[in-house]
Amino acid sequence: MYLQIYEYIKKEILSGRLSHPEKLPSARALAANLQVSRSTVDTAYEQLVAEGYIDAKEKRGFFVNPITHTQNFTRSQGHISVPDRTLPDQKKMIYDFDPDAIDTLHFPYSVWKSIGRNQLDNPDNFISGDHFGEYGLRLAISSYLHGSRGVNCTPESIIVGAGLDHLLQMLCVLFERKAVIAMEDPGYRNARQVLLSSGYTVQDIPLSQGALDASSLIHSPADICYVTPSHQFPLGSVLSISRRQALLDWAYEKENRYIIEDDHDSEFRYKGKPIPALQSLDHGQRVIYIGTFSKAVSPAIRTGYMVLPAPLLSLYKEKCGSYACPVSRLNQAILTDFIKDGFFEKHLNRMRKIYKAKHDYMLEQLHSHFPDGLLDISADNAGLYIILHYHGPLTDEAIIEQAEKNGIRLRSLKGYYANLPAAYRPAYLLGFANLEEKEIRDGIALLAEKVLIV
Amino acid sequence: MYLQIYEYIKKEILSGRLSHPEKLPSARALAANLQVSRSTVDTAYEQLVAEGYIDAKEKRGFFVNPITHTQNFTRSQGHISVPDRTLPDQKKMIYDFDPDAIDTLHFPYSVWKSIGRNQLDNPDNFISGDHFGEYGLRLAISSYLHGSRGVNCTPESIIVGAGLDHLLQMLCVLFERKAVIAMEDPGYRNARQVLLSSGYTVQDIPLSQGALDASSLIHSPADICYVTPSHQFPLGSVLSISRRQALLDWAYEKENRYIIEDDHDSEFRYKGKPIPALQSLDHGQRVIYIGTFSKAVSPAIRTGYMVLPAPLLSLYKEKCGSYACPVSRLNQAILTDFIKDGFFEKHLNRMRKIYKAKHDYMLEQLHSHFPDGLLDISADNAGLYIILHYHGPLTDEAIIEQAEKNGIRLRSLKGYYANLPAAYRPAYLLGFANLEEKEIRDGIALLAEKVLIV
Repeated sequence: MYLQIYEYIKKEILSGRLSHPEKLPSARALAANLQVSRSTVDTAYEQLVAEGYIDAKEKRGFFVNPITHTQNFTRSQGHISVPDRTLPDQKKMIYDFDPDAIDTLHFPYSVWKSIGRNQLDNPDNFISGDHFGEYGLRLAISSYLHGSRGVNCTPESIIVGAGLDHLLQMLCVLFERKAVIAMEDPGYRNARQVLLSSGYTVQDIPLSQGALDASSLIHSPADICYVTPSHQFPLGSVLSISRRQALLDWAYEKENRYIIEDDHDSEFRYKGKPIPALQSLDHGQRVIYIGTFSKAVSPAIRTGYMVLPAPLLSLYKEKCGSYACPVSRLNQAILTDFIKDGFFEKHLNRMRKIYKAKHDYMLEQLHSHFPDGLLDISADNAGLYIILHYHGPLTDEAIIEQAEKNGIRLRSLKGYYANLPAAYRPAYLLGFANLEEKEIRDGIALLAEKVLIV
Repeated sequence: MYLQIYEYIKKEILSGRLSHPEKLPSARALAANLQVSRSTVDTAYEQLVAEGYIDAKEKRGFFVNPITHTQNFTRSQGHISVPDRTLPDQKKMIYDFDPDAIDTLHFPYSVWKSIGRNQLDNPDNFISGDHFGEYGLRLAISSYLHGSRGVNCTPESIIVGAGLDHLLQMLCVLFERKAVIAMEDPGYRNARQVLLSSGYTVQDIPLSQGALDASSLIHSPADICYVTPSHQFPLGSVLSISRRQALLDWAYEKENRYIIEDDHDSEFRYKGKPIPALQSLDHGQRVIYIGTFSKAVSPAIRTGYMVLPAPLLSLYKEKCGSYACPVSRLNQAILTDFIKDGFFEKHLNRMRKIYKAKHDYMLEQLHSHFPDGLLDISADNAGLYIILHYHGPLTDEAIIEQAEKNGIRLRSLKGYYANLPAAYRPAYLLGFANLEEKEIRDGIALLAEKVLIV
């Protein structure tokens, strides 16, 4: 009831029908007039006072405050015309060789769920936590990184964040605004976008023989270098030990030079052992190591981490110490148990076998459908996609279009370049992670018969 | 076994005992020599080739690459000396009147858990989602904001983020680097820290009569203003309708002027109805509305949202469209059901009553222990703390120290000022949200007897 009175008077004031310095009827009089209780009017008047529409003057009553009258106060509200939905409305394809996809069929859901159920019962997951990420999670990450990737770290040097985008944004707070950041070209476009949007200048460094060559950095203004040493994204090469040393030497040459090591899918290597992290060779505190659980667990859990060298760690504490960790405590707790109890390691070992089988099968199908001269394959033996280099007469556009007509989505390598080299020839990233053998077989057959016609 | 061979040769190369252009023994010879299988040596050599330690030359064998020798390769690794833990090691206090705390006792855990269990079974929560936040969650937030806060929004104008720090960081990407941002003084220090760390100039605007006065902005270089209109943080005042209009007029005066409305604990008001959001008055697309679920649900879920005016929404799509939403799908899904099924509204209504009872009880205890002249109380009737203004002879330092000695943690209002006014007198934020009646009673009694001695 009081709300009606409040709304009525508010509208009268905003429309100008009641204006400064008019006096409102006394609460007693209005109550009698409207046949409501005195306290109802009091409440309405109090709310109007609280919001500044009227003033209560002791012993004199209530007066309208000076307020601009808005003609359109009662206009229809709630609709701002903006395009609908944010996900691009992609046509559903029958064969989607998505290089970013992961296998979601073989995840140990029952284990994850059972840990999740336990953690839903843990009241600690409802209170504010450690700004750098829970210590238990950082401990689990640190021992994984040390054991599997050779990374020099302690839980204290790890910061938990929400995926690569977010971690890069946090890093950006630590670098000077005028910093120039060197990136591999072709390279990881999302990271490039984050750096550009954060106001940095990005220097795109063309790769030499598929990998970054530190000698191209020497004459660049860059003092920070973003690199994917264990599995160049997207070309798939390994940065050799001598180039790693040269890159570190470049960093050691000048103060405040840093290398951002994005170790994006180092977990999956199908030949030999994993390539150790570049950070493991750094004895001068110049490598920032970034990794996520997006490929190894799921991108939907939005959890990643960075290992900061000591000088950046101090700076981070000073500048970002008050920022809360963006990952919910529930998620952190589930992930911690998942790693600590050995399920993560077990899952990785299992997925390495499953991905290797899909990888081998895809290569087998490619080799059986295409004659040697028409195609080359690279980026194999690691990661969740291979690259198909096409040497035939068709153009890139014609291939993509023909593929779409046949229900095949292809990702052109072109899209990963900032500056396309003159010698560029059509090439495609073919992901296999979320495809069944049948889909790989039929998709490749269709590709051979209808698209890259053999 | 192959790892031993690999490690041995790697060490020999890194130490310089094997160096460029030396030739390694043939795989066959080494296998015979070590009495291992030929394939074991092949695997070790392949790994060394992959990492660039050696090169395979067709028909000639394996040769060591030129590599810098590191003397200290075998040094002890894994320990970087940095201070332990990131949370300040606070002394445990018996009475902690924490203004940032929330009541965690009355949260409907069983509902949350049961939704959580269901959502753990939903495979959608394992795949990448909408970059702006799931549409269902944005729909739920939009209808809540529209209904309860009068905010003009659609799901399309909402961006889900991980708490206020993170949302502000995203906003920072949209403003020009040289922008000056006006903030209330006293104000929200964490937000100020984010803006400073992101490289902005912050102009601290002293409040007039406890609230921001747009006339102080007119002569400032600021084009962006961060404000807490519904419940000034920390002073607790409501920005009156005429000051709201003046603030909007300031924004309309020049292109690219924006107001960031931080609606931090608008859910809890104990007298009258909630104050409508400033954004509800904006007919010129100048107010960015930010809110979180930290107070209303839990800070541990790290979920907040912002409503962007149309021009900033387009800019956001362009600059940050590729950034993934930092909140895990599981968390988003639980929260969505919690709101959609009416539990959020119910919880808010219940907590409003519980907080009001604690608030009233604290005021009652303060009034019963302290004579009128010694203390003033402000910031009451809303939020999760009140402010105690002390008019006695003791200094701030003496009060804080004496309180700590008695096991009471007090937060001085001083800490929220960028520039302390000359007329500043000791005042303290007393939170009541996570305290039981007994704790409030005994804590206030102790405060009266041993600290602010009456």
